[in-house]
Amino acid sequence: MVAGTSIERVYNFSAGPAMLPLPVLEQVRNELLALPGCGASILEISHRSPQFLRILEDAQERLRQLLAIPDHYHILFLQGGSRLQFSMVPMNFLRNAASPARYVITGSWGKKAYEEAVREGVAVVSWDGKSTGYDRVPAWGDVPMPEATAYVHITSNETIEGVQFPDHPPATWPPVVCDASSDFLSRPVPVDRYALIYACAQKNAGPAGVTIVILRDELLSRVPDNLPGYLSYRNHVRDNSLFNTPTTFGIYIVGLVARWLQEEIGGLENMHRRNQQKAKLLYDVLDQSDGFYRGHAHPAHRSLMNVTFRLKDEALEKQFLTEAERQGLTSLKGHRSVGGIRASIYNAMPYEGVAALAQFMQDFAARHS
Amino acid sequence: MVAGTSIERVYNFSAGPAMLPLPVLEQVRNELLALPGCGASILEISHRSPQFLRILEDAQERLRQLLAIPDHYHILFLQGGSRLQFSMVPMNFLRNAASPARYVITGSWGKKAYEEAVREGVAVVSWDGKSTGYDRVPAWGDVPMPEATAYVHITSNETIEGVQFPDHPPATWPPVVCDASSDFLSRPVPVDRYALIYACAQKNAGPAGVTIVILRDELLSRVPDNLPGYLSYRNHVRDNSLFNTPTTFGIYIVGLVARWLQEEIGGLENMHRRNQQKAKLLYDVLDQSDGFYRGHAHPAHRSLMNVTFRLKDEALEKQFLTEAERQGLTSLKGHRSVGGIRASIYNAMPYEGVAALAQFMQDFAARHS
Repeated sequence: MVAGTSIERVYNFSAGPAMLPLPVLEQVRNELLALPGCGASILEISHRSPQFLRILEDAQERLRQLLAIPDHYHILFLQGGSRLQFSMVPMNFLRNAASPARYVITGSWGKKAYEEAVREGVAVVSWDGKSTGYDRVPAWGDVPMPEATAYVHITSNETIEGVQFPDHPPATWPPVVCDASSDFLSRPVPVDRYALIYACAQKNAGPAGVTIVILRDELLSRVPDNLPGYLSYRNHVRDNSLFNTPTTFGIYIVGLVARWLQEEIGGLENMHRRNQQKAKLLYDVLDQSDGFYRGHAHPAHRSLMNVTFRLKDEALEKQFLTEAERQGLTSLKGHRSVGGIRASIYNAMPYEGVAALAQFMQDFAARHS
Repeated sequence: MVAGTSIERVYNFSAGPAMLPLPVLEQVRNELLALPGCGASILEISHRSPQFLRILEDAQERLRQLLAIPDHYHILFLQGGSRLQFSMVPMNFLRNAASPARYVITGSWGKKAYEEAVREGVAVVSWDGKSTGYDRVPAWGDVPMPEATAYVHITSNETIEGVQFPDHPPATWPPVVCDASSDFLSRPVPVDRYALIYACAQKNAGPAGVTIVILRDELLSRVPDNLPGYLSYRNHVRDNSLFNTPTTFGIYIVGLVARWLQEEIGGLENMHRRNQQKAKLLYDVLDQSDGFYRGHAHPAHRSLMNVTFRLKDEALEKQFLTEAERQGLTSLKGHRSVGGIRASIYNAMPYEGVAALAQFMQDFAARHS
């Protein structure tokens, strides 16, 4: 049972959808039947009502403050997840391009993004971590990057493998598109290093169903005119995310999460420090386990969000999962494509939850070494 | 203040997002911090968790029961609203087709659907109600329908104009695709008359952000292989709506609304009868107002969902809206493209709410005639 609530809640290490901050959930609950002064639920009000327009503007403004997003970047709330962004990015910026897109593949999601790009135009792989099982990211200098490049695509954090870029691409690179789905809002980001950043919300920013896109205004001139309406960034920018009915509830929660980051956490530098502390707890257990736990990622490229490791065999991993579940430490199973254990410790996972897992891991190792 | 609650709630006549049944909102609120026996919120659990898989299956099964959906139809939960369906339908069923798609345009949404279709292939207009301001639907026999037709597209209810097909296309027609966004679940539907039915949820079925698609299995053989991943119905059918992370919360609410329809309302025949009674209240006021209120739709084609009418001038309409708002009757303004008044009275709008509006309309007319 999580401290501070009268309702039994577990520590949920799901890779996404994932934990949300308890104060956010409590506010959602408290005003679920009617927003203050509105007489109707956030689930019921028109996306064109003054109440919702304030919520939309507030969410945008808070994201702009948190990430210090420059004025010449637009903030969009879309649907379809990163999966649809995998296609929208090349539809918008590759179809008419004279040069290829270049994909830096550091894990499973980058690979899927690339596979969608080749349906839309000429996309090439600039770097691929496959030969070492996606356990590391490249040094920027090791990635060949010709000037003739429509855009570069990177995945800042690979959720399945648990590898993360510790820093950001050089300012001299061609326009960089970043899939930041699983580390969005987990640390400060120099937004102006990127042409476009996209993130599904269900890791750090909100519920499943809302996708945040931050894009530089000048990119819009490259959008073809004949795209299907929903798939054109230009339409969404023109209509300020109201090209069609957006996921009003999702945007509302993103706004509440952003407010929590500002008012409870004190901004992204603080959040980053907390995330570093949480991740260190688990990586220290791995490193001090005499090989009982074998971390997947190269130590310099370890994800602060998804801690991935294996035990000596699948039977022991299964036992680990069963015993953890019994202690209220849930959803620790690795992605079905790679197996093993994965502890996703996004923003909303409290330090106490990670400490409980670290303790459990030590106890489990002591009992089974 | 709505009877039965301790929280002040208005009667919200929004065209969508729109009212949800109060028992549904109450259940969402009561289990918002943790689903029973789960220890985590519906907003937090993995879309691959056993808890969510039960919710998904339950929602599908209840829709299947409510609409008597035959086994050879799939039920999908997608994102992107009807707007994305406007494009997905022709991408999937027109790109490779030897014959044109035919669009029956009975209002603003059908027109937008057609405009997206022509980007993807050869689409023609079979009937267009523009010349009479979209105040009626055609008799089926008046729509030329050659056998060489990839599919026919109709809009069962036009939300903006307030016109609705009172019945269903002939069984002899080529495959019919129906945008049922604004009357889905409001009445029984002979599903086997349609090849594909789609509906955004935010009128009768749930919150904004989830789109329901019901499609006949044999259609899948027509889906091109090279579509962008998210835009292929085949992918979503293969993965049972888990091709990517779906809007878990939206699906959960659709399931709760479906249960409310079954257990509180007693099925779609009862719901239809209630909707007929509610609409009659308002149309009777129009018809008995000596022209004070001028209904838009031809009486035989009036929508049971969206009652649209005008007053003698815009100043009086403005006054009508202001006074209604003051009495807790909100969101009655007509769509910005057509003006006037629109009362959307979907499933969740109680009879008492419509009766209150009818009474207000009579009083207002008496004061201003």
